[in-house]
Amino acid sequence: MADAKPKWLERNVSGVLLDISGVLYNSGKEGGEVIPGSVEALERLKAAGFKVRLCTNETQCTREDLVKKLGRFGYKLSVSEMFAPAPAMRAVLQKRDLRPHFLIHAGGRPDFEGLNCDNPNCVVIGDAAESFTYESMNTAFRVLLENHTLFSMGYGKYYRTDGQLVLDVGPFAKALEYACDTKAEIVGKPSALFFTTALEDMGVAVQDAIMIGDDIQNDVGGAQAAGIRGVQVRTGKFRPEDEKHPTVKPDGFVDNLAQAVGLIVKYGK
Amino acid sequence: MADAKPKWLERNVSGVLLDISGVLYNSGKEGGEVIPGSVEALERLKAAGFKVRLCTNETQCTREDLVKKLGRFGYKLSVSEMFAPAPAMRAVLQKRDLRPHFLIHAGGRPDFEGLNCDNPNCVVIGDAAESFTYESMNTAFRVLLENHTLFSMGYGKYYRTDGQLVLDVGPFAKALEYACDTKAEIVGKPSALFFTTALEDMGVAVQDAIMIGDDIQNDVGGAQAAGIRGVQVRTGKFRPEDEKHPTVKPDGFVDNLAQAVGLIVKYGK
Repeated sequence: MADAKPKWLERNVSGVLLDISGVLYNSGKEGGEVIPGSVEALERLKAAGFKVRLCTNETQCTREDLVKKLGRFGYKLSVSEMFAPAPAMRAVLQKRDLRPHFLIHAGGRPDFEGLNCDNPNCVVIGDAAESFTYESMNTAFRVLLENHTLFSMGYGKYYRTDGQLVLDVGPFAKALEYACDTKAEIVGKPSALFFTTALEDMGVAVQDAIMIGDDIQNDVGGAQAAGIRGVQVRTGKFRPEDEKHPTVKPDGFVDNLAQAVGLIVKYGK
Repeated sequence: MADAKPKWLERNVSGVLLDISGVLYNSGKEGGEVIPGSVEALERLKAAGFKVRLCTNETQCTREDLVKKLGRFGYKLSVSEMFAPAPAMRAVLQKRDLRPHFLIHAGGRPDFEGLNCDNPNCVVIGDAAESFTYESMNTAFRVLLENHTLFSMGYGKYYRTDGQLVLDVGPFAKALEYACDTKAEIVGKPSALFFTTALEDMGVAVQDAIMIGDDIQNDVGGAQAAGIRGVQVRTGKFRPEDEKHPTVKPDGFVDNLAQAVGLIVKYGK
C-alpha cells in the first residue's frame, strides 16, 4: 500500500462521497458480494470524523431495500445518507406536472407509486436490465416521438455484475435520444446538481470534498466537472485502460476503498 | 395530383433509385401489404426507358427472399437489380479478414454462411428486431469493448411495420457506440458509397439520378450528401413533421411512388 502523501490529499478533506456498486460491494444474482475491507474502511472513515454520503445511480431497488441489502454485508447505513436518482426524479415530475412512461426495473417502481401515468407525456428511463426488450424500447420510443421529453436516471455505460460487464442505462438512453432527435435530462450522476445536493446535505464545500467511485466518467469525471476531486478505485468495473483514458484524468487511483480511507485518515485533515 | 413541372425535374433524369419498404410495400407480419399504385408505377417507369435500381437496408431476409416476397404483390424484379447491405458487408469482412460477431435477424444469416466467426474481433449489427434483447446487446457489447470495430448495416432511426413505428438498427448501433467509445462504419444507406455503387451499376452519373424514399435522413439526406436529388414519398414512415425537418430539405415531396413516376415520365426526359 502506497504510504506517501498523494497529490489528491494536498488539500484537506472534510466530506467524502462514495459510490456503492463496485466500491462497497459487487452486484450479482444472490445479492452480490462484499468488497473485502470496505465495511471496516467505511466505519473507520466515519469514526475519524469525516462526513460521508453515498452517491449511487441504483434504480433497481428503493433506498430502503439497498440499506437492507448492504446491512447483510455488515454496513450500518441509514436511508438519509443515501443519494439515489429516484427521489430527485419524482420531485421533478411532480414539480413540472408531467405524466411519465417508465422504462425502469420493477424493483424501482415503489419509489414512483401514486403518480399519474395516464396518457404519458414524457419517458423516464433507468437501468431496466432484462426489461430492455425490443418491445419495451419501442413503447418508450413511440411515447417519446410525440413528446420529446426524456429523463435518464444516470448515464453510465456499463457496470460489473455476476463477474461480468453488462450495459447500464446510458446506451439505451442514447438509443432513444437518437431515434427521436432529443437529448435526455440526466437525474443522478454525472449531473453536477446531484453531487452538490449531497454536499449541501452534509454542509461541505466542493473544494473540501472527494468523490470515490469505480466509474471513470460518471463518478470521477462527473465529480471533477462539479469542482470535486475524483478518485478511482481499481475494483468494480475498473479496467486497466481507464488509467490512460482519453478525456478523464482522475485526481488519483487507489486499489480499493480500504486504501483510499487509509490515506484520507492519515493525510486528509 | 400536381401536374406542373416540379423544381426537382428541372434537370433531366436517366436513372432512379428506389427504396423498397415504405415505397413499394409496407412491411408486416403476414408479409405486409402493397402500396396502391406502386406495382404499376414501377412497370411504367421501366417501360419509359428509365434505369432503375432498388436500394434497401433490408437485412431481415436475403435479396432472393425479398424478390420472392415482392413477387407475390406482382413486382417483377431480379436479384441483380437489388442493392442491399449484406453482400457489401460480406465483401468488407472477407477483404479485411475479420471474424464477425453478428447481431442480426435470423432471416439474414444465409448471406453470411461460411464465414469464420470463432473468437470474433468485430461486431456486425443489423435490424435484428425482436432479437435485440438485453442479453444479445450485452454479448455484442463485450466483443466490441475488446475490439472496437463495429459495422452497422444501415443507420435508420425507425420504420413502419404492421401499421406502427418501430425502432430500426440505428438506435441500437448508437447504444453500442456510446458504450464502447467507438463509431460504427455504416454499410448501406446513408453511406454515399452505397448509393454510388448502385449508380455505377446502371451507368448513371449522380447529377442524372433521383433517389425516392420514405426516410428523410437515410434516403433523402443520404442521397443528397452523395450529390443525388432526393425526393420523399408521403407513404411508409413519412410523418407530417418531416416537411419541416431541421436539417434535411428534400428536393421534392410526392404523395406516393405513382405520383413521382407520373411526373418523371412526363417531365424527366
